[in-house]
Amino acid sequence: MSQRFQVTPWEVTGVVDYDKLIEDFGTEKITPQLLKEIENITGGLHPLLRRGFFFSHRDLPQVLEAYKKGEGFFLYTGRGPTGHMHIGHLIPFLFVKWLQDKFKVPVIIQITDDEKFLYKEEFTLETTRKYAMENIYDIIACGFNPDLTFIFQDSEYTNYYPLAVKIAKKITLSTVKAVFGFKNETNIGLIFFPAIQAMPCFLLEKQCLIPAAIDQDPYWRIQRDVAPKLGYPKTAAIHSKFLPGLEGPTGKMSASKEQTAIYLTDNPETVKRKIIKYAFTGGQPSVAEQKKKGGNPNICTVFQWLNSLLEMDDKSIKNRESMCLSGQLLCGECKNYLSDKLIEFLSSHQQRRVEAKKHVDSFKYTGVLARELWSKKW
Amino acid sequence: MSQRFQVTPWEVTGVVDYDKLIEDFGTEKITPQLLKEIENITGGLHPLLRRGFFFSHRDLPQVLEAYKKGEGFFLYTGRGPTGHMHIGHLIPFLFVKWLQDKFKVPVIIQITDDEKFLYKEEFTLETTRKYAMENIYDIIACGFNPDLTFIFQDSEYTNYYPLAVKIAKKITLSTVKAVFGFKNETNIGLIFFPAIQAMPCFLLEKQCLIPAAIDQDPYWRIQRDVAPKLGYPKTAAIHSKFLPGLEGPTGKMSASKEQTAIYLTDNPETVKRKIIKYAFTGGQPSVAEQKKKGGNPNICTVFQWLNSLLEMDDKSIKNRESMCLSGQLLCGECKNYLSDKLIEFLSSHQQRRVEAKKHVDSFKYTGVLARELWSKKW
Repeated sequence: MSQRFQVTPWEVTGVVDYDKLIEDFGTEKITPQLLKEIENITGGLHPLLRRGFFFSHRDLPQVLEAYKKGEGFFLYTGRGPTGHMHIGHLIPFLFVKWLQDKFKVPVIIQITDDEKFLYKEEFTLETTRKYAMENIYDIIACGFNPDLTFIFQDSEYTNYYPLAVKIAKKITLSTVKAVFGFKNETNIGLIFFPAIQAMPCFLLEKQCLIPAAIDQDPYWRIQRDVAPKLGYPKTAAIHSKFLPGLEGPTGKMSASKEQTAIYLTDNPETVKRKIIKYAFTGGQPSVAEQKKKGGNPNICTVFQWLNSLLEMDDKSIKNRESMCLSGQLLCGECKNYLSDKLIEFLSSHQQRRVEAKKHVDSFKYTGVLARELWSKKW
Repeated sequence: MSQRFQVTPWEVTGVVDYDKLIEDFGTEKITPQLLKEIENITGGLHPLLRRGFFFSHRDLPQVLEAYKKGEGFFLYTGRGPTGHMHIGHLIPFLFVKWLQDKFKVPVIIQITDDEKFLYKEEFTLETTRKYAMENIYDIIACGFNPDLTFIFQDSEYTNYYPLAVKIAKKITLSTVKAVFGFKNETNIGLIFFPAIQAMPCFLLEKQCLIPAAIDQDPYWRIQRDVAPKLGYPKTAAIHSKFLPGLEGPTGKMSASKEQTAIYLTDNPETVKRKIIKYAFTGGQPSVAEQKKKGGNPNICTVFQWLNSLLEMDDKSIKNRESMCLSGQLLCGECKNYLSDKLIEFLSSHQQRRVEAKKHVDSFKYTGVLARELWSKKW
């Protein structure tokens, strides 16, 4: 009997059965054949693809087809600025950056400072705008190409409004009630927002590809309903699994629970303390048992963080996995290793983040893609 | 027993009892005392005030107070671009222009090309934008001050979006369902629109005054609910009666019924033909009866059009009224008189309309108020 789990855009609970999720959501599995096709173009696979962290998709073959025919495609991702970003938030951006490098395609990054303001009673628009800027530094630090990337805040780049209106005309109240669970008490800004969230898929007249965790898929179903009615292609998607929080192994990392997340701005002491204190491992109750039975990397936060973000060398991660399984590795050692890796990763990210502040204008206003979109009318 | 009538923002039926309407809507009557106060400032009263066509208000004394204290106020009116404008549409604009002249105050004119696109299944955004420009020519032809007037299209001047979002956060789905009768099939653009319609009241940090026909009052109740929560004054309003359609005397002129309206673009032959053929009068069934009993100007479209738009000389209109009542005037003569007056009025309007096309940029982009608002951020 499989354990019960639930995945909606606003909550992930239980141990997720990803094969079941593909079935429930009606998406497609990323097959070895499809990976091979990607590799033929990119000359190699990102560890997140190779290791199955990105595991599901919609219409990915059409994206590759458009690319091969020279029509091209573009990537769309985003961020809801509710606070500082944690390492889980960084994964899709790092993956998008890799895709941009390999395919040389435009990337559009939407910062939903309007929606987060509308959603959180206590937030002012000034609050979400402040977080928007903080998050933009982290995103730029991922290394995007400033001429092929447009980062915009919904509350600033408002040129899109006529486009959002064209989309909104095709979406009924009953649809958004069903998908988002809106009630009579919901404010009318949130009710309109699904049009604004779908809008970036229409900003360029090309096939759009959205890399995101699979819980976000329902949002894009609305775009896929509307697109043909407006004469645009349905957006494609590539879906990731969830990065567990420190206290894993169920659910996903949550920015609202301080003890489950490592923030991109955390200092080395904080990182070390949180990992030692909170990290859930797949270890046995005692050292003796661990040595005898071995650990379980499948449910281990430490292993999963290394596997999806910090240990990009395949041989090292395989070696760590087998040493854990055979009981040769103790959880304390692994925690220390993760802590060192993470501190190194964050130190380098934080340096790039300082540098990023100088390049905000290119991404928001003056880069080639930014200028194209600021001068575009709908 | 009074005749039944109904007044909602989307339908006016029956013979309207305006005193009853003031009671039902909870507005205030414009008293002789209040007229006197206006006259003390303006040095005279517009015929539409003098003759009671503008008959009801909300918070008008506060507006005069703000003016006298030197805080000032501004006027907000608008137009839904569904087609060419008829003479009924012109009345509020002519009245607003008079107020602007007398009080030297800013006027903000919203052209809701987004809402009309969202509302009419068969309209493209290009359709409502085309009508928007046609309507803007007619509005400019009313003679507004180009440095004190900002005319904008919702689908173009999108800077307001963050302001609309702040308003939208304070309006629930149940409120807009109750006021506008939205259903599950309603598109989410229309559901958001009440925030965009309230928004112009917040564009300047001053008391706002809206001159409009009284059926529009429910729209502004939402603004009056929200304003204190955002630290803005509730908008004031001054309400007019309805100009009856040619086939009067019930309801109001409708742009969708060609035979009830005189369009601002109608040529003299069309004007004459429509009036002779369709104009409803308060006359008796025969000339003999008319001479004996006299006519009824109260229910006469011809008289009401003269009274509210075309015969601005008080002595002439009084004279016409008493001659009608005493049976000295026959309906055919009156129709011919109206037709001549209207042809003269439209000829002069149409000349100003041609001239207006040269001044669009001042009102939309380059006038003092337009520049102030294009550079403003929320």
